[in-house]
Amino acid sequence: MSDLNFKINRNRFLTALQNNARAISANSPIPALCGILIEAGDDGLTLISSDADLYIRTVLSNTDDENLGLSILDTGSIVIDARYLLEIVKKIDSEDISVEVIDGTLTRFTGGKAEFKINGYRASDYPQTDASEPENSFQLAYKDLSDLINETVFAASTKETRQVLTGVNFKSDGTQIICTSTDSYRLARKILTVSAPEFNVTVPARSLNEVKGAFAGCTDIHVAVSDRKIQFQADGIMLQSRLLEGAYPETERLIPKEFSCELVINREALIRAIERSSFIKSDNIFVIRMQMNSAQDISISSKSQEIGESHEDLTAESYTGLPLDISFSGSYVAEAARTLSSENIHISFTGEMKPFVLTNEGEDQSLLQLVLPVRTYN
Amino acid sequence: MSDLNFKINRNRFLTALQNNARAISANSPIPALCGILIEAGDDGLTLISSDADLYIRTVLSNTDDENLGLSILDTGSIVIDARYLLEIVKKIDSEDISVEVIDGTLTRFTGGKAEFKINGYRASDYPQTDASEPENSFQLAYKDLSDLINETVFAASTKETRQVLTGVNFKSDGTQIICTSTDSYRLARKILTVSAPEFNVTVPARSLNEVKGAFAGCTDIHVAVSDRKIQFQADGIMLQSRLLEGAYPETERLIPKEFSCELVINREALIRAIERSSFIKSDNIFVIRMQMNSAQDISISSKSQEIGESHEDLTAESYTGLPLDISFSGSYVAEAARTLSSENIHISFTGEMKPFVLTNEGEDQSLLQLVLPVRTYN
Repeated sequence: MSDLNFKINRNRFLTALQNNARAISANSPIPALCGILIEAGDDGLTLISSDADLYIRTVLSNTDDENLGLSILDTGSIVIDARYLLEIVKKIDSEDISVEVIDGTLTRFTGGKAEFKINGYRASDYPQTDASEPENSFQLAYKDLSDLINETVFAASTKETRQVLTGVNFKSDGTQIICTSTDSYRLARKILTVSAPEFNVTVPARSLNEVKGAFAGCTDIHVAVSDRKIQFQADGIMLQSRLLEGAYPETERLIPKEFSCELVINREALIRAIERSSFIKSDNIFVIRMQMNSAQDISISSKSQEIGESHEDLTAESYTGLPLDISFSGSYVAEAARTLSSENIHISFTGEMKPFVLTNEGEDQSLLQLVLPVRTYN
Repeated sequence: MSDLNFKINRNRFLTALQNNARAISANSPIPALCGILIEAGDDGLTLISSDADLYIRTVLSNTDDENLGLSILDTGSIVIDARYLLEIVKKIDSEDISVEVIDGTLTRFTGGKAEFKINGYRASDYPQTDASEPENSFQLAYKDLSDLINETVFAASTKETRQVLTGVNFKSDGTQIICTSTDSYRLARKILTVSAPEFNVTVPARSLNEVKGAFAGCTDIHVAVSDRKIQFQADGIMLQSRLLEGAYPETERLIPKEFSCELVINREALIRAIERSSFIKSDNIFVIRMQMNSAQDISISSKSQEIGESHEDLTAESYTGLPLDISFSGSYVAEAARTLSSENIHISFTGEMKPFVLTNEGEDQSLLQLVLPVRTYN
């Protein structure tokens, strides 16, 4: 194996390394996994990073990026601790950086008058990952993907007791993908109308957050799915995530189809009123009580034995149905309302202890947020 | 005692409360100390907060601030937990806020359509502090005070083993005040030419940081000192700090007066070169080795068994004296250089294991930074 030796534009290298660093866990028990695997080949430079959840591969080549300034003097590969690699490339203030393996795993970085010699790891010590592309694939606009992530990930469970709930479930029937997340107290569901193969997989919430960051700036994302992994690809970047094991609960039957009361209210005004009371917590839970009599007679209040209470009157756009007195987690409703986008939103109820549903006003009903009430304190 | 009842401009009230919150420790064993004491008197509103180190008193009156919009309907006093108080005043989005004690310690806050009723503490439960003004006083421009704080506080010790070193010593001989801080490995000294009574006091570093924030925007600060406390006053705000007990070490004799080598070097270039290597640490200490032969032959390097090494050549403005090979904490020298202000700075040495001194170029020699070398690793 020859020694690695290349020169590259510092800014482009830094951007790629920062993206790859998403798949580094700082304290991996396998030292090489704290590093980024750098492979200089005849076609370009490949950066690989991975942890228990994620695998990211970035291919940099002059054909794809005319400002890359990549010249490979010697092919080869090395693993460098991501912390040191980022420190060096961040702080070197020259236009280009040269990287050369000079002795075994000792790697020299030069830029301007500064020179660093860093101890690396052998590429052969870097764990192998199956990075082959699964057969089932489809295209998704980045905008749709990142919206979907914003609209669902927050509702996934953060408790490890039921692993499968810590992800977002993607269920495709060929014509649409139903994306669902739930922590058992609330549920987010987004329906994407997209032609894709049939599948039913659950992707860790953390992976989706990294997908959102890794592909920011891209237009179209190529997605490929198997029953073991999901791959996202665009602009030379490939991100692969493991899937969560276990059957995702059937949630469709939990979503009420008929409602007895419906509130149409300004989204911002509702969020602000809820957030104003957010510090009034009992046992660290922030409960809002909402009393609805008519569009002109809506009140929200909160109460805590220790701190005190709040009260605020709101005017709704409309209210239909019998008066309703319902209590819920203020944070859950505020978070759900924040994912909606219309000026006024619909909140549909079926009773004071039944789940209620928040949706946008208008034709686009692809997003639904469901929240379970809590027992009133009085 | 009547019940407190007043109305005030929300923004002005918020600014004053945020300033007072500097003297709140979140988990005081005395519950009332988690709160801000609000006193509505005939002359205006007084806000008081305090902890083990600090006492802040803010007086708000319409005569001092024509936009205060203060109207006192009933005099009285109450203590409200600072967290809740700030939450409420931050989130109420009306122009004015009304505050009224309605039942014992239950206090109502109203603004716009929002209403909060918060459980407070009796003013009589708020610990008394002697807030009388010490006799020895002088004037200081805020700019001089904040510069001085920036230039010295960072060098104070953070270890509680020798309490007196966790502050900045102020020693006045009537015509000048010598301000010194040291953690035994480095020392900062700033001389203020100001006519003041004689005193020798040590102020906790944390108090000085709060002084810098509390009086930002003020022009002249009235300072009063006794052997037990120091007071700062301006624009209706009074901040009082305890002093650190114990004799401050005599440090003047530690500062070398004669030097064998002198380096004049661009301040920014030196700081950047040092910071580039800052990740190369041995036993978590970041040691820079500086080898000086001539103005054209200056190098800085760092080395760690585990990580690797760095090397960078620098060109100085001038270098006089025999060649010198010296090692020091990179962080200490970078921090010291950052407090200096001239484009080029002087670093004066007396030997490889003797303290060296960093000063500005030019006539103003009021600021001096001293750093102790460390043993070289080779």
